[in-house]
Amino acid sequence: MLDEVLPPDPREVMRIVRRALAEDRAYHDVTTRATVPSDQRGRGAFLVKAPGVICGMEVVRAVFAEMSDELELEVFAPDGSYAEVRHVAAEVRGPLAAMLSGERVALNLLQRMSGIATMTKRFVETAAEGGPAQILDTRKTTPGLRELERYAVRVGGGRNHRDTLADGLLIKDNHINAAVKRGVSIPDLIEEVRRTIPHTLRIEIEVTDGAMALLALASDADTILLDNMSPEEMRQIIDDAPDDGILFEASGGVNLETVREIAASGVHLISVGALTHSAPALDISLEIEAL
Amino acid sequence: MLDEVLPPDPREVMRIVRRALAEDRAYHDVTTRATVPSDQRGRGAFLVKAPGVICGMEVVRAVFAEMSDELELEVFAPDGSYAEVRHVAAEVRGPLAAMLSGERVALNLLQRMSGIATMTKRFVETAAEGGPAQILDTRKTTPGLRELERYAVRVGGGRNHRDTLADGLLIKDNHINAAVKRGVSIPDLIEEVRRTIPHTLRIEIEVTDGAMALLALASDADTILLDNMSPEEMRQIIDDAPDDGILFEASGGVNLETVREIAASGVHLISVGALTHSAPALDISLEIEAL
Amino acid sequence: MLDEVLPPDPREVMRIVRRALAEDRAYHDVTTRATVPSDQRGRGAFLVKAPGVICGMEVVRAVFAEMSDELELEVFAPDGSYAEVRHVAAEVRGPLAAMLSGERVALNLLQRMSGIATMTKRFVETAAEGGPAQILDTRKTTPGLRELERYAVRVGGGRNHRDTLADGLLIKDNHINAAVKRGVSIPDLIEEVRRTIPHTLRIEIEVTDGAMALLALASDADTILLDNMSPEEMRQIIDDAPDDGILFEASGGVNLETVREIAASGVHLISVGALTHSAPALDISLEIEAL
Amino acid sequence: MLDEVLPPDPREVMRIVRRALAEDRAYHDVTTRATVPSDQRGRGAFLVKAPGVICGMEVVRAVFAEMSDELELEVFAPDGSYAEVRHVAAEVRGPLAAMLSGERVALNLLQRMSGIATMTKRFVETAAEGGPAQILDTRKTTPGLRELERYAVRVGGGRNHRDTLADGLLIKDNHINAAVKRGVSIPDLIEEVRRTIPHTLRIEIEVTDGAMALLALASDADTILLDNMSPEEMRQIIDDAPDDGILFEASGGVNLETVREIAASGVHLISVGALTHSAPALDISLEIEAL
Amino acid sequence: MLDEVLPPDPREVMRIVRRALAEDRAYHDVTTRATVPSDQRGRGAFLVKAPGVICGMEVVRAVFAEMSDELELEVFAPDGSYAEVRHVAAEVRGPLAAMLSGERVALNLLQRMSGIATMTKRFVETAAEGGPAQILDTRKTTPGLRELERYAVRVGGGRNHRDTLADGLLIKDNHINAAVKRGVSIPDLIEEVRRTIPHTLRIEIEVTDGAMALLALASDADTILLDNMSPEEMRQIIDDAPDDGILFEASGGVNLETVREIAASGVHLISVGALTHSAPALDISLEIEAL
Amino acid sequence: MLDEVLPPDPREVMRIVRRALAEDRAYHDVTTRATVPSDQRGRGAFLVKAPGVICGMEVVRAVFAEMSDELELEVFAPDGSYAEVRHVAAEVRGPLAAMLSGERVALNLLQRMSGIATMTKRFVETAAEGGPAQILDTRKTTPGLRELERYAVRVGGGRNHRDTLADGLLIKDNHINAAVKRGVSIPDLIEEVRRTIPHTLRIEIEVTDGAMALLALASDADTILLDNMSPEEMRQIIDDAPDDGILFEASGGVNLETVREIAASGVHLISVGALTHSAPALDISLEIEAL
Repeated sequence: MLDEVLPPDPREVMRIVRRALAEDRAYHDVTTRATVPSDQRGRGAFLVKAPGVICGMEVVRAVFAEMSDELELEVFAPDGSYAEVRHVAAEVRGPLAAMLSGERVALNLLQRMSGIATMTKRFVETAAEGGPAQILDTRKTTPGLRELERYAVRVGGGRNHRDTLADGLLIKDNHINAAVKRGVSIPDLIEEVRRTIPHTLRIEIEVTDGAMALLALASDADTILLDNMSPEEMRQIIDDAPDDGILFEASGGVNLETVREIAASGVHLISVGALTHSAPALDISLEIEAL
Repeated sequence: MLDEVLPPDPREVMRIVRRALAEDRAYHDVTTRATVPSDQRGRGAFLVKAPGVICGMEVVRAVFAEMSDELELEVFAPDGSYAEVRHVAAEVRGPLAAMLSGERVALNLLQRMSGIATMTKRFVETAAEGGPAQILDTRKTTPGLRELERYAVRVGGGRNHRDTLADGLLIKDNHINAAVKRGVSIPDLIEEVRRTIPHTLRIEIEVTDGAMALLALASDADTILLDNMSPEEMRQIIDDAPDDGILFEASGGVNLETVREIAASGVHLISVGALTHSAPALDISLEIEAL
Repeated sequence: MLDEVLPPDPREVMRIVRRALAEDRAYHDVTTRATVPSDQRGRGAFLVKAPGVICGMEVVRAVFAEMSDELELEVFAPDGSYAEVRHVAAEVRGPLAAMLSGERVALNLLQRMSGIATMTKRFVETAAEGGPAQILDTRKTTPGLRELERYAVRVGGGRNHRDTLADGLLIKDNHINAAVKRGVSIPDLIEEVRRTIPHTLRIEIEVTDGAMALLALASDADTILLDNMSPEEMRQIIDDAPDDGILFEASGGVNLETVREIAASGVHLISVGALTHSAPALDISLEIEAL
Repeated sequence: MLDEVLPPDPREVMRIVRRALAEDRAYHDVTTRATVPSDQRGRGAFLVKAPGVICGMEVVRAVFAEMSDELELEVFAPDGSYAEVRHVAAEVRGPLAAMLSGERVALNLLQRMSGIATMTKRFVETAAEGGPAQILDTRKTTPGLRELERYAVRVGGGRNHRDTLADGLLIKDNHINAAVKRGVSIPDLIEEVRRTIPHTLRIEIEVTDGAMALLALASDADTILLDNMSPEEMRQIIDDAPDDGILFEASGGVNLETVREIAASGVHLISVGALTHSAPALDISLEIEAL
Repeated sequence: MLDEVLPPDPREVMRIVRRALAEDRAYHDVTTRATVPSDQRGRGAFLVKAPGVICGMEVVRAVFAEMSDELELEVFAPDGSYAEVRHVAAEVRGPLAAMLSGERVALNLLQRMSGIATMTKRFVETAAEGGPAQILDTRKTTPGLRELERYAVRVGGGRNHRDTLADGLLIKDNHINAAVKRGVSIPDLIEEVRRTIPHTLRIEIEVTDGAMALLALASDADTILLDNMSPEEMRQIIDDAPDDGILFEASGGVNLETVREIAASGVHLISVGALTHSAPALDISLEIEAL
Repeated sequence: MLDEVLPPDPREVMRIVRRALAEDRAYHDVTTRATVPSDQRGRGAFLVKAPGVICGMEVVRAVFAEMSDELELEVFAPDGSYAEVRHVAAEVRGPLAAMLSGERVALNLLQRMSGIATMTKRFVETAAEGGPAQILDTRKTTPGLRELERYAVRVGGGRNHRDTLADGLLIKDNHINAAVKRGVSIPDLIEEVRRTIPHTLRIEIEVTDGAMALLALASDADTILLDNMSPEEMRQIIDDAPDDGILFEASGGVNLETVREIAASGVHLISVGALTHSAPALDISLEIEAL
C-alpha cells in the first residue's frame, strides 16, 4: 500500500526548524540559563485544549533534537489522528532547560500545522456531503512555510495544487488579457503555450463566466478553473461540456457554508485559500514538570 | 521628532523576500513565460477590499525590485494609514511578466502584515476605552516572519515585548518550579538571577494568583506578569502593591470582549498572542492591466 | 511576439558565476597581482576558432561584472547566432588585471554552453529532415549547471523536458516493477497516481516494447516514452494507436546518425542525453591586448 | 606507504552532492512518491557498459546516504580499478524510493568522474611509451566540480597542476605583454615578482618560441611552459638548456595522437585541458530491482 | 546548583570552527597529504608554556571532530582550571594527518580564549582587593568571535555586559547630544525612551562628570555609567546618590594598576575593553608524536 | 608601477563586515532607535590617540555603506600613512543613527588592523638596521579575519607567508618524524613529495639544529626554516651553505629586541607570529557630533 500521506522534505523541515530557533535565539535563553541547572530533567505533556487533527509531531521532534540529543519525544497522537480536548498528544522527556528553550518554537509550528489540518478536514467532510470533489490548497501559504503547510493539508485529507510557479500552468485573466492585447485568442494561446512548455505539465485556464468557459472548452486546455461563479453557473457549464476528461476546478467564495453546494455542482476540484491563510492555530499547550 | 514607528531591519526584509520568491520559484513561472512577451508592460492597482490598516508597502516594493529593476511602485496609502474599501493603496507599473510572477508573494506578505496591524489597532483602541495600558505582542509569531510581524504590531499602535529569548527575562511557572525543586524561593531566585544576567536586562516574573503575586512583590522583580486572572483579581493586586515603579502586565484570555475591562484594572501592559497567531489576512487584491 | 528563447533565472546565473570565481580563487590571482599594475587597461576579443552557435554571452557579462564594475562587454554575436571561424563574438574592455583573473571562468562557461547549443542545433536540423519531432534535453545535465545547460538547449532550438523531479511524472520501468510487485497493473497504477499528484502535472510512462505500449495506451497516460526501440517498432506502435492526443517520445540510441529516421517514425518528441552530457566545448579563445 | 591517490575534500563532496540533489529536487520526486510505497525495498547494480577506470564510488555513497540512512552501498570496483563491460561495479540496497530519487545524481557524477579517470589513464599510458613525462590537468574544469575532477585525474594516474589562481604562478603571454608595455623585461619581471609573492610559490612562465625560451632560461623562473610548439622545437630547447633543475611543461595541441611524441621530447610535464573539458562520460547504468 | 559558567551556543561554536578550517583550507593541507600516510596514528599533548586559566577545550574538541571522527580528546585541565607551566592540559589521539591539519586552528582558538580568561581572572582578583565590584566585558570583541570571547570572560570569573545592541540600552554622550539638539533634557529623554522600548530592557546612561550624574540620578535610568572619572569623583557621586537600587558602572582608564582603587570607590560594575581587545594569547603548544 | 600594497579580496571584506554587523545586531540598536530621529544628521571624526600606521579605511567605508547609502567617508590618512596623535584620519557624514549603530564594528576592525600594521612597521624598520631580511606573517591569525590581517601586514611593510595550507609546503618536525617512522630520510622525503605535489609549489623544511640543516641542504628543498636558533647558529649554517639560491627563514623567539640581530645573521626571511596574534589595537576614537 502506498503511504496515505507523503511526509515533507526532511531537509526543508530542518531548515525551517533551525531558522525558527535562530530567530528566537533559543540558545541564548537568558531566563532559562539563569534559573534552571543544566542537569535538571523534566517531562512535558502536549495537552490538546481544542479538538482537532494533530499535525507536526515530526517537526516537534526535530525542534527538540536540535536543542538536545537527550530530549526524547513519545508520540501518542500521530499526525492525522483526531484528538479530543484533554488528550495528551505526546510527551517529551529530558533536560529541562533545553525543553524550555525550544518550547515556543515547537508550539508555534505544531499549533499552526494542526490548525491547517483541522480546517482542511472540515472542508473535506463538508464537501463530501455534496459530491466527490477533492479539496485543494493554493499558493496562498505563509512565506517560508509552504512545505509544512502543504503537508498539513494532506494530513487533513486535502490534495495539493501545484507547489510552485514552475510545477504547472495556470493561465489567469491577466495572462489571457496580455494575449488578447497582442491579438491572440484563447485557443491559439493554448496551442502556442503547448509548444514551448515542458510537455510534462498540464494547462489549466481560469474563466469567470460561461462565454469564456466555452472558449476554454474549445481549446486544448486540460483543466478549467471556474472562478467566483455560483454553483448553478458551474453546474450548467459542466453539464454542457463534452465528456472528454477535462477537469473542472472551483475557486473563489469557498467557505464552510458554500462548499457543500459547490461540490454538488459537479466540479472535480475545489481550491480553498483559507486553508493556509486563515486557519486559526489549534490550541495545544505544553505542560511541563520539573523532575 | 522621533519616528512614530521604527522600520524593520532592511537585511531581514531582503532575506524574507528572497526566500519567499525562491520558495515559489518565481523566476521559473512557466505560465507567465509562456504567455506574456518580455517587452509587454502593465499596471497594477492594490485594491483594498476590506477596511483596515495598511502595512507592508516597503516589503512589496522589495518584492518587485527583486523581480525587476524596472518595476516602480507608487504608494498612496503608506504603512499605518487606514484604508477604506475600494481604496487604491498603491500602484505598480513596469514589465508585466515580472509583475505577475511576483504578485502572489507580494500579496501574501502585504495581506498578512496589514491583517496584524489592523487587529492591533482594534485592540489598542478598545483598550484605550478602559485605561492607559499598552498593547504588546508576544513570541507567538510565525516562524521566519517575526521581524515583519513585530513591525506590523508597531504600525497598528502596539508596543513590542522582547524580540528573542536573549532580550529580557521572563521567569515563568516552569522556571519557578525548577527553582522550588532545588529549594530556592522566589525572592532568592530573583536575587540569584540578578547576579548573573547582563545588568542591562530587566526581570519579569509570571504569577497566577494573589499569593504568588505577594511573593513576587517581595522580590526584586521589575515587572509582574499576571497570567490568566480576572480583572478584579488584577485590580486587587495592583491596588495593594506599593507604588514603587513596578510594572504589571496582563496575559491570557485577552480578546476584544475582555480587553477594555482588563485595561481598566490598572495594568500597564497587556500582551496579546492573537495579534500574530490569529489575525486574519486583510483582503487586498492586485488588479492588473496589460498596457 | 513572445521571446524566442527564455533567458535563465538571473539569481541562479549569479550563484553559478560567484561559485565558479570562488572555486578558482579569482580574487587571489597571485600571478596577475604580481605582474599587472592596477591601473593598466586592456582589451580582449572573444575569437571563435570552430564554427557553432554562440551561447552564454550574458553569463560572460556577469563574470566580468563580478570582477570589476569597470569591465565592459560589447557583444557582436548574441546568444543563438551562428559564428564562423575567426569571427569576433564579443569584446571586453577595462582593467586588465580583472579581465585576466576572470578569463578562465568566463571561457569555461561560454565554451560549454556554446558547445551544447551547437550540438542541439545539429540534432534539431537533422531531425527536421525526418519529421516534425522536437528535440528535448534530459536530466543528464552537469550537477550545478542545469539552469545554464537547459538554456543552451533552448538557444540551440531544442525544447526542455521537465526541469526537476517535481515538475512532471515519468513512470519508468522501476516504478512499474514496484507496482507489479504489489499486484497493481499499469492502467490501475496510472489511475492511482492520477488521484494523488497535483492535477497540474502530466503523466508520462516509459515502455520498452509493443506489448507494454498497448497497456500504456489502454491507460490514462498523457505521454508514452518509447525507450530503446527501433524506428520501425515505434512507427508500428504510433500507427496502431488511436488518434486521441497522446504524445510519443523516443529515447535511447539517439545520435546524429539515427535521429533523422527516428523523427520519421512519427514520434512527437526525441530526448537526447548527449546534448548535455557529451557535447564537446566549442573552441573560443579570448585574445587579450594590454592598452 | 603513502596513499596512492589523495581523496577529495569531504566537505566539498558533501556540498556538491547536496547542491545536485537540491537542483534536481530529489526530495520532491513526485513520480516515485506516487508509485513506490515507502516500505518497499530494492537492490541496484551499477553495471559497466563500456570499459574504463571507475571513479566516484565514495561520491555515490554520499548521494545515497543523503537520501536515506538505510541505503547501503557495497563497492566491488573501488576507485582506480579498471572495469570491463558487464562488470558490476557496486551494489546498493535499501529503500527503493530513496534509491530511485537519487539515481540520476549518482549516475551523473559517477559517469563524469569515471570518464575523466579513463581518459587520463589513456593519456598516461600513451605518454609513457614516449618518455617519463607526467600528465597534468588544467584549470579548464567544470565550474563547481573542480574538486571532483582533479581527484578523477589523480585516480587515472595523472598529477594535478595548481588548484586555483592562488596556488602558484603561471606568467602567460598577457602578463608578459603587460610588463613589456611598462618597459620591464622578462628577467626583471621574474625578479620583481619573486620579491612580492609568498616565497612558498614557484614561478612558471609561458613561452611560445625558442627566442622567448632563451629569455626565460636567463631568468629566475622555476618552470617553463612550452606552449603550442612542435616536439622538435621542444626537444631543441630542452637539449640546449643548462641542466640546473628547471622543469619544462608542454601544453597546446596535446591529444592521444601527439602525446607520445611530446613525451619523447624530454618535457617533464604535459598538461591536457581535454582531460576535464572533453572527457566523454563512461557508460555505467544502475539496474534496479524491487525486492 | 546552577552551572558555574554558561557554555557558548553550540551552533555558533560549530560555525566559527568550520569557518576557521575553511579559511585555512585545512582539507587541502598539501604538506601533510604529501608526507603522512593516511593510516598513521599519532598522539598530541597540549603543553602549557605560560601559567594561566585554560579556556576553549570544547572548541578544540570540535575542531578535531570536524577533521576526523576518529580523533579523540582527553581533557585534563577543563575550562576554568588554572594550569602551571609544563602542565599537559589535554591529549589528542588518532589519525596523525587529521591532527596536523587541524592543529593551527585549534591552537589559535585555545590560546586566544585562554588568554582572555587569564586576563579576566587577574582583573577579578585585583578588583576584589578593593571591593565587591564585578568585572564586565564590553562590545570591543574580535569581529566574528564574540560568542567565544564572552564565554572566556565568564570562565575567567567575569560577568557579561549586553551581548548585542539589541540586548540593552546604553545611552551614550552622542545619544544625549542628539536629544539635546532637539531640545530634550536627560530626564525627559529617559521617559520618552522608556515608553517605546521593550519593557524587558533596562536603561543605562553614560555620564562624564558630576553635574551630568546629578541629571541622570534625577531621571528614571536604571544604571549610571561613570566614564573616565577618577575613583574620587566616582566615590563622591555614589556617596551622594540616594540608596534606591540604582547601579553604578565604571569604564575608561581601567587597568591592573587602577582597578583596585576603582573597585574601592563603591561602583558595582567595572567594564574592561582590554579583556577582549588586548589580552595576549596564552602560550600553549601541541607536542605531537607519530605512533 | 605595480601597486605598493595589494588590497584585500573585496568579497571577503564584505562577508566579514556583514558578519560583524549581524553579530552585533547593528540593525536592532534599540538605544539609537529610541533616542535619535531618523532624519538627524551627524559628523564623526576618526581621531588618532596613539601614533601609528593607519590601516582599514576601506573596511570602515564598507561598514558605513552597509549601514546606510547616505553615509559618506572622507579619508585624510589613507592606509599605510603614519598618523600622529590628534590627527583626524577620516571624517564620516550622514545619518546620525546609522553612524552610531555601525561605530563599534568600524572601530573594532580599524583599531585591530592599524595595530597590526603599526607593529609590522616596527619590526620591518628594526630588522632593516640588521640586514635586508623581509618580515613575514604566519598562519597565527585571528580565525575569520586572515584576509584583513594579512593585508595589514602588507600595509605595514611586511610580506605574506603562505595564505593557507594549500598554498605551499612547510615540512615541519612532525612531518619529518612521521617519515622517519616509516624509514624515509629527509632527502628521500623531499624527493617523494616533489613527485606528487603540484609543481607550482615550493618546498620549505623546518630544521632545529645544524645537523638537520645539513640534511636539508643535501635535499632538494627550496627554503630552510631555521626554528628557534640563535643568530650565531643561523649565521654559521648560512655561511657554510653552498650559494645556490636556497632561502633561509628564521622563526621562533623573534621580538623587537632580537630581530635586528636575527636579520644580521644573513637570513632572507623572518616570520613573526606576534604580528597577528599579539599586536595591540591602535587607539583611535570616533568623535561624533550631531548636526
